[in-house]
Amino acid sequence: MAIVLKSGTLVTASETFQADILIEGEKIRMLGKNLEVPGAKVIDLPGRLVFPGGVDPHTHFALPMFGTVSSDDHYTGHKAAAFGGTTTVMDFVPHEPGQMSASLAVWHAKADPMAAVDFGFHINVQRMNEQVEADIARLPEEGVTSLKVFSAYNGRLRLDDGGIFRTLRLAKDHGLLVMMHAENGDVIEQLTAEAVAAGKTSPEWHARTRPAWGAVEAVLRGAALAAQASAPLYIVHMNAAGEVDLLDYARQRGVPVMGETCPQYLFFTEEHLRRPDGAKWICSPPMRTTADNQRLWQGLANGIIQTIGTDHCPFFFDGSKPIIYEGKPVAIPGKELGRDDFTKIPNGLPAVGDRLPILWTYGVRAGRLSANDFVALVSTNPAKIFGLYPQKGALLPGSDADIVVWDPERRIQYGVAHAQHRTDYNLFEGWELVGYPEKVFLRGQLIVENEQWLGKVGQGRFIKRKPGVQLL
Amino acid sequence: MAIVLKSGTLVTASETFQADILIEGEKIRMLGKNLEVPGAKVIDLPGRLVFPGGVDPHTHFALPMFGTVSSDDHYTGHKAAAFGGTTTVMDFVPHEPGQMSASLAVWHAKADPMAAVDFGFHINVQRMNEQVEADIARLPEEGVTSLKVFSAYNGRLRLDDGGIFRTLRLAKDHGLLVMMHAENGDVIEQLTAEAVAAGKTSPEWHARTRPAWGAVEAVLRGAALAAQASAPLYIVHMNAAGEVDLLDYARQRGVPVMGETCPQYLFFTEEHLRRPDGAKWICSPPMRTTADNQRLWQGLANGIIQTIGTDHCPFFFDGSKPIIYEGKPVAIPGKELGRDDFTKIPNGLPAVGDRLPILWTYGVRAGRLSANDFVALVSTNPAKIFGLYPQKGALLPGSDADIVVWDPERRIQYGVAHAQHRTDYNLFEGWELVGYPEKVFLRGQLIVENEQWLGKVGQGRFIKRKPGVQLL
Amino acid sequence: MAIVLKSGTLVTASETFQADILIEGEKIRMLGKNLEVPGAKVIDLPGRLVFPGGVDPHTHFALPMFGTVSSDDHYTGHKAAAFGGTTTVMDFVPHEPGQMSASLAVWHAKADPMAAVDFGFHINVQRMNEQVEADIARLPEEGVTSLKVFSAYNGRLRLDDGGIFRTLRLAKDHGLLVMMHAENGDVIEQLTAEAVAAGKTSPEWHARTRPAWGAVEAVLRGAALAAQASAPLYIVHMNAAGEVDLLDYARQRGVPVMGETCPQYLFFTEEHLRRPDGAKWICSPPMRTTADNQRLWQGLANGIIQTIGTDHCPFFFDGSKPIIYEGKPVAIPGKELGRDDFTKIPNGLPAVGDRLPILWTYGVRAGRLSANDFVALVSTNPAKIFGLYPQKGALLPGSDADIVVWDPERRIQYGVAHAQHRTDYNLFEGWELVGYPEKVFLRGQLIVENEQWLGKVGQGRFIKRKPGVQLL
Amino acid sequence: MAIVLKSGTLVTASETFQADILIEGEKIRMLGKNLEVPGAKVIDLPGRLVFPGGVDPHTHFALPMFGTVSSDDHYTGHKAAAFGGTTTVMDFVPHEPGQMSASLAVWHAKADPMAAVDFGFHINVQRMNEQVEADIARLPEEGVTSLKVFSAYNGRLRLDDGGIFRTLRLAKDHGLLVMMHAENGDVIEQLTAEAVAAGKTSPEWHARTRPAWGAVEAVLRGAALAAQASAPLYIVHMNAAGEVDLLDYARQRGVPVMGETCPQYLFFTEEHLRRPDGAKWICSPPMRTTADNQRLWQGLANGIIQTIGTDHCPFFFDGSKPIIYEGKPVAIPGKELGRDDFTKIPNGLPAVGDRLPILWTYGVRAGRLSANDFVALVSTNPAKIFGLYPQKGALLPGSDADIVVWDPERRIQYGVAHAQHRTDYNLFEGWELVGYPEKVFLRGQLIVENEQWLGKVGQGRFIKRKPGVQLL
Repeated sequence: MAIVLKSGTLVTASETFQADILIEGEKIRMLGKNLEVPGAKVIDLPGRLVFPGGVDPHTHFALPMFGTVSSDDHYTGHKAAAFGGTTTVMDFVPHEPGQMSASLAVWHAKADPMAAVDFGFHINVQRMNEQVEADIARLPEEGVTSLKVFSAYNGRLRLDDGGIFRTLRLAKDHGLLVMMHAENGDVIEQLTAEAVAAGKTSPEWHARTRPAWGAVEAVLRGAALAAQASAPLYIVHMNAAGEVDLLDYARQRGVPVMGETCPQYLFFTEEHLRRPDGAKWICSPPMRTTADNQRLWQGLANGIIQTIGTDHCPFFFDGSKPIIYEGKPVAIPGKELGRDDFTKIPNGLPAVGDRLPILWTYGVRAGRLSANDFVALVSTNPAKIFGLYPQKGALLPGSDADIVVWDPERRIQYGVAHAQHRTDYNLFEGWELVGYPEKVFLRGQLIVENEQWLGKVGQGRFIKRKPGVQLL
Repeated sequence: MAIVLKSGTLVTASETFQADILIEGEKIRMLGKNLEVPGAKVIDLPGRLVFPGGVDPHTHFALPMFGTVSSDDHYTGHKAAAFGGTTTVMDFVPHEPGQMSASLAVWHAKADPMAAVDFGFHINVQRMNEQVEADIARLPEEGVTSLKVFSAYNGRLRLDDGGIFRTLRLAKDHGLLVMMHAENGDVIEQLTAEAVAAGKTSPEWHARTRPAWGAVEAVLRGAALAAQASAPLYIVHMNAAGEVDLLDYARQRGVPVMGETCPQYLFFTEEHLRRPDGAKWICSPPMRTTADNQRLWQGLANGIIQTIGTDHCPFFFDGSKPIIYEGKPVAIPGKELGRDDFTKIPNGLPAVGDRLPILWTYGVRAGRLSANDFVALVSTNPAKIFGLYPQKGALLPGSDADIVVWDPERRIQYGVAHAQHRTDYNLFEGWELVGYPEKVFLRGQLIVENEQWLGKVGQGRFIKRKPGVQLL
Repeated sequence: MAIVLKSGTLVTASETFQADILIEGEKIRMLGKNLEVPGAKVIDLPGRLVFPGGVDPHTHFALPMFGTVSSDDHYTGHKAAAFGGTTTVMDFVPHEPGQMSASLAVWHAKADPMAAVDFGFHINVQRMNEQVEADIARLPEEGVTSLKVFSAYNGRLRLDDGGIFRTLRLAKDHGLLVMMHAENGDVIEQLTAEAVAAGKTSPEWHARTRPAWGAVEAVLRGAALAAQASAPLYIVHMNAAGEVDLLDYARQRGVPVMGETCPQYLFFTEEHLRRPDGAKWICSPPMRTTADNQRLWQGLANGIIQTIGTDHCPFFFDGSKPIIYEGKPVAIPGKELGRDDFTKIPNGLPAVGDRLPILWTYGVRAGRLSANDFVALVSTNPAKIFGLYPQKGALLPGSDADIVVWDPERRIQYGVAHAQHRTDYNLFEGWELVGYPEKVFLRGQLIVENEQWLGKVGQGRFIKRKPGVQLL
Repeated sequence: MAIVLKSGTLVTASETFQADILIEGEKIRMLGKNLEVPGAKVIDLPGRLVFPGGVDPHTHFALPMFGTVSSDDHYTGHKAAAFGGTTTVMDFVPHEPGQMSASLAVWHAKADPMAAVDFGFHINVQRMNEQVEADIARLPEEGVTSLKVFSAYNGRLRLDDGGIFRTLRLAKDHGLLVMMHAENGDVIEQLTAEAVAAGKTSPEWHARTRPAWGAVEAVLRGAALAAQASAPLYIVHMNAAGEVDLLDYARQRGVPVMGETCPQYLFFTEEHLRRPDGAKWICSPPMRTTADNQRLWQGLANGIIQTIGTDHCPFFFDGSKPIIYEGKPVAIPGKELGRDDFTKIPNGLPAVGDRLPILWTYGVRAGRLSANDFVALVSTNPAKIFGLYPQKGALLPGSDADIVVWDPERRIQYGVAHAQHRTDYNLFEGWELVGYPEKVFLRGQLIVENEQWLGKVGQGRFIKRKPGVQLL
């Protein structure tokens, strides 16, 4: 049945205007003034904002790590995303030994039956050889148009500079985008080994063994490799002021390098790791300083950073105590694994559902971002960069009817009770929010209405992505 | 009668997508897939691009100067704009002695009966006193929401810093935007007097007596005054590399300052003033160097500069020789007035019609700008900044049906014969263009079809503008 | 009688070495190893450092202001300078109505009979006309090779940009250096008038009516005028982070612009003006923020800023209560004049004696500056820039024997009791110092030994300065 | 016998003054006015400048490479240095398999009997392990206080980031300075292999396979490693604009990183490699662009770069044709080895003798550098940074009497006939020079007088260096 969303204020990456939306089936069919469509269901939205569904470019669902697994799977994590206004997520596929297609198949097996929102895959390039080169060439056929490389995690995920350079050139040849985790693995290894040897095992040492300068130079290194390969690059989870400086430096010299940050890096600092529950804030790269927070905000406001993802990878703070989730007790080993040794604390945070609500109140309402910039950062830009656009990230005729109806006046005291992540804590516990999703449509289906879940397992669809565009 | 533009590729400031447009009366009513509208005229646009009509934030029609007048009036200039794909122009009203409302009335009397595209007015603040303060407070009622100040032209147009500061604070109080011509008037006066005294009167001395450093510091001065007034500022016709540096510097420190450049500053240099026909390039500020050209391009690509206007203010190169215009001979005194003294050469260039075609070929096709950036720079951003949006600058339901159908494959050898300015030369004479307007609609009326003029005098309408938004 | 200073460690702007110094009469005759000079008085200096006497480029002794006068005259101020290791001061001469030579004569009449250290004069250019032009041309004959201009203090000291530009060009023609007080006078006037009208009259409003952005743009404006005049410029009392940024920006683009800061701007902030005794910190430009303090330190460490002066211009905090000075009660109206209105608080601070001791402990010992940089900043650089070198600012054969013997281990709790300024307070009250002058020689005469004053009124000599050099 | 150098103008890193110098034995004993020393030989130097002997921080004498050896050995190269005003050179010792002390012994065996000027050693850290760690700890005993690491030359000289980081921390612990060759080895390997495979073997491909971006990021990488190790770093042979930008960036954020450039990078560009004799300009890193040249000059003028070395490592252009050297025919295989393959062209240039003469005329006389900056860059700064000061690099009592008497008016047409390098070409062939060494003293001995060689083999002495200082 057709649906007309009437009288809402549509907010896109560059426009704010009043129009009605006609949804037919899974698609937006029309935008217009005073649309009269016989037989359509009419939903009146006075005073409401209408956004394209959020697109999160950076999630890790059901990711095995340190003997446990991230606590949101492709169902619970998707559901949490939806409650927070996100209707498309892009998940990272580890490249296990063997062909990339096999790794993708593993991930499809985990995600496809569980998916509750639409999704795409990035794949890690964790080693480089002729087989990998051949695999990369076939990725576009599989609908995977982005790769991730790491300059950290020696012996596990890291590629050396030559490998990153080869990846960039291959990516260019095949219309793929390379994403980079930018830290200096060698320094981290040495400092970590020393800290552990010296008995410095509390959470703050996670941050102290991953200095910002290592991330800063790695951003420029990545940009320089991209410049030399004439290929675009996307820096994930930027977190340090110097990273913003150097992203700007490189781009002002013509290098096609883009950047992402995450909500957590905009608000928290290394101080949080010194709290008794500091392990909650452990992720990589770590929290930095308030000066870094501010520079990141400025980088968003000035268009130096293009997207906000989440790097969602939640763990229980205390996995020994079950929580009630969908009516049943659930307990998954988590941060307590590293109670005596920060190197054993699973790295990651819940965030996928927090992104839009937190950024609306503390970004848009706080005057740091315009509403259009907000939509661009959380939806349109990631959709464009990762080849989902205009199917996703847009309120256009022909786009998927992934739509968030936002009540800009709804007041909420946020926290784990509101967030729908399958974990036992939320970083934004107790924060006051003004503005929250009221309805969320996935391809024309209403899947969230206020606190009510109307969706179902498996409704999410894998999106074969095309090559994206460079936003510079 | 309703019109459906079918199957074109719509390009907006952030979106590129295929959709049909339904025009009803003066407005866009709908955007949709496969629109079927009984009784509507259908225009098929396969392979064509569809832009919102260009918005030129900076024109000077029929402006008296140096004993003559700029050679395009509000009819001929508007017509030239339309041929180049621009459907809204913003013209500057000098503030003559007396109340501002009287000066506006004078300009309405000149423009209203002649207008061939839609238009708005900016007004110069050339002196500051209590009367002017009171006048400024009433401007919004007159639909004028922007003011221009000058840090050059001592004794004529210049306000001192205190006057600019007062203007900024008044503007803030009344929802107006201040535009600034940023040069150092004092230095220019001294250097000009010396050059003339020394018999250095050839056109190149126009540039040599207006050094770039004076413009560069004036940009920061303006930004600093804006910062101190907590008011937004818009720098007109940026032309020097250092201006880009300092616009970026100020904005990265939170100052709400925006910038405009013009086509001429992207391509030409002081060398052109040394040619025998160097007077053709005389405008203020002057052409600079190729390094400046490049930095301006980079500033556009990186979003440091928000708009491209023209500062259209044409004069005949040789006003003693009539040209045939609309079938009749026309001659208007021009650059020849200063044949022996550059200080008597009327300052200004033809450009209003060149803007879109030149920037398409040498910006978008040359890989310096994306098509979306192009639309943002020449249409959407000026519309937003100057309070015309979403009536203008947008392809949205409810927007005026100001639409440019662009043939991206049309090849033209450009020049005075193609441009429709009422003058005897064109700066881009002989340049190869690929891509050109095919149809131009003004509020639903087809006014240009290829080389044919379907519009008529007086059809343009004065647009009462609202307060604009800051694009930072 | 000849003197041999034996076994000290000589510290110059670029060298640190052990050598003996032979003083003959007023001059250094030799530097050598193991100097044996029959008949010479030998002073053994093991463990002591030996610096060239400090050169303070920026003092205001006996300056009339706001109905009173700065409380140190050319004797008491010089004496305080000497106790702090400074043996040459450069004082600013106001240009009163009439010829500059008359103003200089007035200042000579005040200074010559009182002087206790050597001194030079700068002169203010407070208006510009043909008489002033002629006067400027004759300044070198009078031994005055530097001029000061102001972009603030409208109606009193300010020159407009054209006047500054003319001054720069004249200065260039006659081998003079222009010094600039860089603030935006117009904004200050407006904000001050408003603050007073609104009853905001406490000391903090002195700072709030002189925003940093006004100083920042004025630095670039000055640099741009210098660039356009091809003349060097020296920015006095830099105090804001942005000033450092723009000094660096301009100089990296080849502009010959130099900068000075003062001790007070390195340690104090606007917060100090909010204290009950906030008036003590009132000077112009005002204190800024800790971020500004830090950027200034970095600017010193990186060679962006060339000198440290004091802008010494002391007033009593409470001029109604006499202090005992040289055994007699003295009271001079001071800060209390503006108890109810910050605009009436005399602007200025005691500092001339604090400079070396404070910077040694909190600059050199704190690891922010090397000992060589310290000597360069407080002695050699000002001597070079202002044409005193190598007579002053150097430990060279032929230089004046102005020598400070420094005890690097002497510990002092500093404050008004130690400082010898004729005023009732000291900004550094209670600060711990490690390192202090032990002996001070002026042209071969021991004038200070620890706390003992061996000098006498009138012993100081006016130094006719030559053109200085640019340190870029 | 004592010598008095009378009436010269002494130029040091910060001073220019007239004084006499008394030399006793190997040392400067005194500086003074009108020195009268019974029995001393008096050399009158009216109109002459007197510099401390040049200190070249970067030479490669008798270095085996690509099946040949650099054509200057520790005698011929030292002699050429002396003719050009350089009296101390620092040569790099390859760390051959085995203990570092053995490698040093090998180099002592080559250098000690041949040395004609004084010299020190740096040693390469080409691999990192416990033995190397132990070796490094003992280097200060051997008088070697600096280490070199390479981020290029994979499989030969390169250390990975972890190795560089370990080296930096060891260096810090033992008072050593790390020097870094900053390029990206991985990219160079790939591009070189591809170029060769594609038959692109002409000299220009040497430059095209070593892109500037690789050097630029490596500078920041080095600085970041230094920041994380809290250790100083010295970047050798800076050659690209971006390297200057990032050295400045890092140092303005408190990182103790210093930089060196070489004469060749100030004048030549990649264009020179396209000449038929392009192989003459082959060294690593390669020549860049004129924009890079200019930024390097600006970096020198602004104090961003601290030293000018030479990276002297000459080869014959055509080693098949003997030249006459000291009366005998000499031919050493050289650039012709790579006539058909740039990868086989020995990397390196003659430069050790060119440094002072070229920089005087084209730096100081051309107005780009002051005479004091010149002395600092070519003598005092390297001496300080590498722990030779004040024995070397200074005209101070107690310093070695390494003295250059410079005739500032001597005019020479420079080239291979004048330069004394043992090779068959000179990069500055035919350049006009004004100013040239007239006399050169090494520890009090006159070893060069105009074109006459008065020195002898073996007179040079190995200098055991102390820890240096950081110049920031």
